[in-house]
Amino acid sequence: MYISSRANPLIKQVRQLRQRKYRDETGLFYVEGIRLVVEALKSGNKIENLLVAPELLTSQFAHDFLKTAGSNGLNKVEVSREVFESFALKENPQGLAAVLKAKWSSLPEVDRENPEVILALNEIQDPGNLGSIIRTADAVGLDTLALLGNCTDPYDPVAIRASMGAVFTQNLIKMSFEELAAWTAGKGIQLIGASGNAQVNYRAASYPRPLVLLMGSEQHGLSNYQQAACDMLVSIPMKGRSDSLNLAIATSIILYEVFSRQNDSVVSI
Amino acid sequence: MYISSRANPLIKQVRQLRQRKYRDETGLFYVEGIRLVVEALKSGNKIENLLVAPELLTSQFAHDFLKTAGSNGLNKVEVSREVFESFALKENPQGLAAVLKAKWSSLPEVDRENPEVILALNEIQDPGNLGSIIRTADAVGLDTLALLGNCTDPYDPVAIRASMGAVFTQNLIKMSFEELAAWTAGKGIQLIGASGNAQVNYRAASYPRPLVLLMGSEQHGLSNYQQAACDMLVSIPMKGRSDSLNLAIATSIILYEVFSRQNDSVVSI
Repeated sequence: MYISSRANPLIKQVRQLRQRKYRDETGLFYVEGIRLVVEALKSGNKIENLLVAPELLTSQFAHDFLKTAGSNGLNKVEVSREVFESFALKENPQGLAAVLKAKWSSLPEVDRENPEVILALNEIQDPGNLGSIIRTADAVGLDTLALLGNCTDPYDPVAIRASMGAVFTQNLIKMSFEELAAWTAGKGIQLIGASGNAQVNYRAASYPRPLVLLMGSEQHGLSNYQQAACDMLVSIPMKGRSDSLNLAIATSIILYEVFSRQNDSVVSI
Repeated sequence: MYISSRANPLIKQVRQLRQRKYRDETGLFYVEGIRLVVEALKSGNKIENLLVAPELLTSQFAHDFLKTAGSNGLNKVEVSREVFESFALKENPQGLAAVLKAKWSSLPEVDRENPEVILALNEIQDPGNLGSIIRTADAVGLDTLALLGNCTDPYDPVAIRASMGAVFTQNLIKMSFEELAAWTAGKGIQLIGASGNAQVNYRAASYPRPLVLLMGSEQHGLSNYQQAACDMLVSIPMKGRSDSLNLAIATSIILYEVFSRQNDSVVSI
């Protein structure tokens, strides 16, 4: 297939995927750029359409990738430069993009031999923050992220870009706070929340696994009700005028603390 | 003074301050919103003009603030709602903004009794990252930030907003990497750089003060030459597919490690 009209219905749909409404309705999302498309494919996200603008695609790596991808039965759509630029998010695009099926997971089985850490974000609003958090989550080796309540979309182009492709490495779960709290309570899993009011310094806490680390929203943190449901609350001490950190930064600081503990205990044995 | 024309030269200048070129030429910058204007004033940044739209300013706190500010001889300019909205960055602005003089500092005297930590950022490009780093810097109690080489502008509206006003708490220094390296070498101050290649885990390092923590740019990190000039290089371990963290996050993780050490040693004495 070769499309040279910006008014083609498929091309219109690609442009519409910038809006969350259309992503939610269709269950699809859009990624752009050689690196992100390759990461998406490696991670097993189902590709609906691979969009290629031969006039723009100069990378030999990308051409080799497309040959392999072609033989795997991917639905490759070639488009003109003008058409590609009509949906591209970046200036001077590389000529490779894809429409993929969003992937959502359920809470994992709890493996007591190899207990997990799960990160839960309550009503996170900023897609850049969400993407940065996912990038850190991947870096510490976490693979399960629960998005509670009315969160921004991990498949928002801003979140995907800020994650540097790490969004494809995570099991993403959509659920309510109540469902999560019932699950942790039922399984005897520690629910550890972060709050500016907490008495326990995050560096002085212990983090017995399995555990869920719960972070509140940028504007409102965790509600009193949510704080009361936690087994422990930790805070990050602050000395300056600010009374809070950026959410992605606070989350990352605590994640690095939690994940370094495993190393610490290995070292001290 | 009351301005009701968007074409007024002062109003044109206010709008131009969105562009770095005009900020650099005039040495001025623009802040908006009650909280940021009050923070800016408290920190002693010189105000050129206080811009007030009486039709928009409903906050009693802001009115009280203006009464005090007025008696301190501030140059208050009243503008119509339409004029205010012509330069406002936010939708539904609060009706208070200011044009201020940018403040730049020099390297501090080294106080051996109370040795400092200085953060140096080399060619940081993203104003959101810079603002978030400044917010963390304020939170750990740091007050001196050196911007090396071709950095983004801390007085960029995006940086100011991301800093949540913490930009006004910092002594900001513009200098070259060479100047900084000559200063640390001459004074016997540790220069500690962060690099993905470093053998030393940031958690295993010691951070004897005074010290300068040096972070590279988002795209290029620190050059080989810069790494060679450091007394020590530390890295943040990463397990996932990503080979780097967001710069603001990496900087914040190391800053919290450095500043928690003081507490650790106080506790253990």
